[in-house]
Amino acid sequence: MASLDSPAILLNPIDDVAAARRKIRPGEFTGIDDIIACEIIPRGHKVALRAIPAGGEVRKFGQVIGRATQDILPGQHVHLQNLAVVESQHEHRFSVDIEAKGMIPPEDCRTFMGYDRGAGGVGTRNFIGILTTVNCSATVSKYIADHFNRSGGLDGFDNVDGVVALTHGGGCAISMKTEGYLYLTRVIQGYARHPNFGGILMIGLGCETNQIAPILEHYKLEESNRFRTMTIQQLGGTRKTIEAASEMIREMLPSVNAVKRTRQPLSGLKVALECGGSDGYSGITANPALGHASDLIVRNGGTSCLAETPEIYGAEHLLTRRATTPEVAEKLLGRIDWWRDYTARNGAELNNNPSHGNKAGGLTTILEKSLGAVAKGGSMPLRAVYEYAEIIRERGFVFMDTPGYDPVAVTGQIAGGCNVVCFTTGRGSVSGYKPAPCIKIATNTDMYDHMQEDMDLNAGTIATGDESIEQVGARIFERIIAVASGEKSLSESYDYGDNEFVPWQVGAVT
Amino acid sequence: MASLDSPAILLNPIDDVAAARRKIRPGEFTGIDDIIACEIIPRGHKVALRAIPAGGEVRKFGQVIGRATQDILPGQHVHLQNLAVVESQHEHRFSVDIEAKGMIPPEDCRTFMGYDRGAGGVGTRNFIGILTTVNCSATVSKYIADHFNRSGGLDGFDNVDGVVALTHGGGCAISMKTEGYLYLTRVIQGYARHPNFGGILMIGLGCETNQIAPILEHYKLEESNRFRTMTIQQLGGTRKTIEAASEMIREMLPSVNAVKRTRQPLSGLKVALECGGSDGYSGITANPALGHASDLIVRNGGTSCLAETPEIYGAEHLLTRRATTPEVAEKLLGRIDWWRDYTARNGAELNNNPSHGNKAGGLTTILEKSLGAVAKGGSMPLRAVYEYAEIIRERGFVFMDTPGYDPVAVTGQIAGGCNVVCFTTGRGSVSGYKPAPCIKIATNTDMYDHMQEDMDLNAGTIATGDESIEQVGARIFERIIAVASGEKSLSESYDYGDNEFVPWQVGAVT
Ligand SMILES: [Ca+2]
Ligand SMILES: [Ca+2]
Ligand SMILES: [Ca+2]
Ligand SMILES: [Ca+2]
Ligand SMILES: [Ca+2]
Repeated sequence: MASLDSPAILLNPIDDVAAARRKIRPGEFTGIDDIIACEIIPRGHKVALRAIPAGGEVRKFGQVIGRATQDILPGQHVHLQNLAVVESQHEHRFSVDIEAKGMIPPEDCRTFMGYDRGAGGVGTRNFIGILTTVNCSATVSKYIADHFNRSGGLDGFDNVDGVVALTHGGGCAISMKTEGYLYLTRVIQGYARHPNFGGILMIGLGCETNQIAPILEHYKLEESNRFRTMTIQQLGGTRKTIEAASEMIREMLPSVNAVKRTRQPLSGLKVALECGGSDGYSGITANPALGHASDLIVRNGGTSCLAETPEIYGAEHLLTRRATTPEVAEKLLGRIDWWRDYTARNGAELNNNPSHGNKAGGLTTILEKSLGAVAKGGSMPLRAVYEYAEIIRERGFVFMDTPGYDPVAVTGQIAGGCNVVCFTTGRGSVSGYKPAPCIKIATNTDMYDHMQEDMDLNAGTIATGDESIEQVGARIFERIIAVASGEKSLSESYDYGDNEFVPWQVGAVT
Repeated sequence: MASLDSPAILLNPIDDVAAARRKIRPGEFTGIDDIIACEIIPRGHKVALRAIPAGGEVRKFGQVIGRATQDILPGQHVHLQNLAVVESQHEHRFSVDIEAKGMIPPEDCRTFMGYDRGAGGVGTRNFIGILTTVNCSATVSKYIADHFNRSGGLDGFDNVDGVVALTHGGGCAISMKTEGYLYLTRVIQGYARHPNFGGILMIGLGCETNQIAPILEHYKLEESNRFRTMTIQQLGGTRKTIEAASEMIREMLPSVNAVKRTRQPLSGLKVALECGGSDGYSGITANPALGHASDLIVRNGGTSCLAETPEIYGAEHLLTRRATTPEVAEKLLGRIDWWRDYTARNGAELNNNPSHGNKAGGLTTILEKSLGAVAKGGSMPLRAVYEYAEIIRERGFVFMDTPGYDPVAVTGQIAGGCNVVCFTTGRGSVSGYKPAPCIKIATNTDMYDHMQEDMDLNAGTIATGDESIEQVGARIFERIIAVASGEKSLSESYDYGDNEFVPWQVGAVT
């Protein structure tokens, strides 16, 4: 492997390409073997380390990331013009890497300060949530939240983090027989149960397809002083609904405010792992560092949840090896089959996921991106695979089937019970996901410097040779515990999270 | 036909059923022929006027709305338990009802007070719009709008109706080859051109699939002092983007504020026709009344736009007869074919559209609902059929292909240029659609009384025998002109319209 300050980084000794630490100019030595760049290699992009004939496999991370579409010479830029994805044809071996290494004895495990909700889990925040069945109750719900957040309605209730209205564009003109309806109701019930809420109001219009009553019945939710429901049509319109709802929240506030943080084992933590706006550094800095933090969470008795199925596509064989049972592995492969069908019937492709920004950052193929994405999941055994927005009941490292699209993915993870979000980004995503805090981890120092007010942590130090993956991983782990205990993340300081609730819409809107 | 105060209303002499004006009790005379109700007929529901054998056709509005699924006796309640949809098999005759009756000479046409935007059309409002390419720029955009609307940033600019941030849940992880991408970009460009905006800011994150540059290029939009674009990643994060955007809006404000309303011909009006939360009265009160108002708009040189393809399904033969050319008719039938495929490949059905609320209100089949929905479109010739969010260029009565779901349908119509929305509702929808004002028309007096603060007009007077369809239609027409000229509708008085922008999401999110 090249030294920590060479122009290019070799990630694995068998690799055919190296990643440029900075822009490399034609004629410049890459720092690896005797390879001289023969054209510009942009920062984060790949340089060929040997001649690769057209059709030949190209390796990065020690794995095949695609095939050459034309002859490639040593020192050439390897990207869209000469590299393309190959269909996944890896040998699937189930449950061969399932040793839970480094588990910490319970008495030595770390703790955090959380809100004990009994059987409902442990909260890292204490919000009042307004859930909406349909877009038609969005505006009323926003007004109710505004009434408390902006007009002094929370004065004297310092222990309440705010009232958040989670609105969306769906809820009617959908078939109740479809996955779309299933996913929407699962998301709503998951949020209704989330331990970061001290109280919940569920508001419908009244005549929508997505009725309140079937949600309560199917998911066994019961109304109480802290869980109320209503419809605008029953109450007689906008003003009357706002008044009735505000009165209900006023009634909830004293008891919601009375809950105090107490010392809790890390088994109360469920960490959502997410990446957005990835670049060529994601897979070599922030994602492996987050993977290390994920391992620390799991070793301390907590749960971490990888997601974004299209982003792990092509690297699923690394996860099925880690599945604790063949059933867990089969469930993962079953979801990947579902995705093949879902994308095919919608005229999309599973292998076109690298976005405009990803490509500009140097990622060429979905396989390359997938290997980098899976790195967020660390090395612990995979204990369960969940469908979108299913409640996460297993402890340890788990996977949830979601799209890669950030707001949809995180909405599913939070519905599953995640109470902290860790979000790596190379291009610089800005977002938050109430009621869970979100920690942003920059993959490179240039972006970190440029967008420092939005980036909680910089993993770019791994690329500059200033820190190891383990050091950055340990910093992420400590920040997770601090934020879970009440320290505000940067996106919380901007009060992000009122607009990023996006339940996965699957199927037709009629 | 029965008298205006009989318990049931007969809509057409050949009908097999009548609609209950109020709840009719067992043993009660319906007021039609010698028919006595033999069970409870809820308000708005249908009572059989003759014996119908299982399999027999059932007529309402003089049209077949379905077939009996069991023998039906005179006086019985006709609804889900004994009536089901039949596949559409009407004879399609094109362009036979295309006489434009009652067109008013230009010199006698009505006018309104609007904002002249030259080639951009005529505005009925004067907003500054913040358009977003992706969910990732939603929160920043909301903050910029809040900065002006809530912090005195518009003081001294009384001629500006507000700054509105139109945010959504999509914009990334979609294939650029799909209809979903096409529809999203069409909506964004349509809003960017909308005459109700005096100025536009378009804000992206930076790395999303839905890039700003291709939108500008494909739709030939050019940046100017009143049309600016930016990305959060380029500007360096949340705070810097809010500051830069706020400065741009401050620069726009004086010129946006300087525009004055002037007298304009009705050719500057494009009225979106919409219904939501329909009931058994929709098709017999508010919708035909709106149809009359639509005819008055067209006769005065304006444009009215029917939409909601699934809601006219089964009654398309009434529209194709009115198509001014066979091409217009073929385009409508082509969209209906598209819908058959779209719903089939998504496990949905075109005939399952009546919502829970619709059924509770007495609508049994999609055909029955469709005939009532088409009534909004009045009687004038159909001059054009548009795909979702296409710019409306023809004047007169036109159709746009949209879902029935209110926010998605109206978003498409406004993208097409509609500058007033007329919305009929039986169950009581509450909504608004910035930058266009929305006029709510209640189908029945009970709901109007119950939700009076949200309902601009009551068409229930048609059912109670106090007004004719023409009288209510004339009231709607006058209200359209008043609201177009600046009078606030009720949903505007509540400041609705910040949460109902929902571009149609078609296809897979990956
Ligand atoms: Ca990602
Ligand atoms: Ca993502
Ligand atoms: Ca306002
Ligand atoms: Ca409707
Ligand atoms: Ca509708």
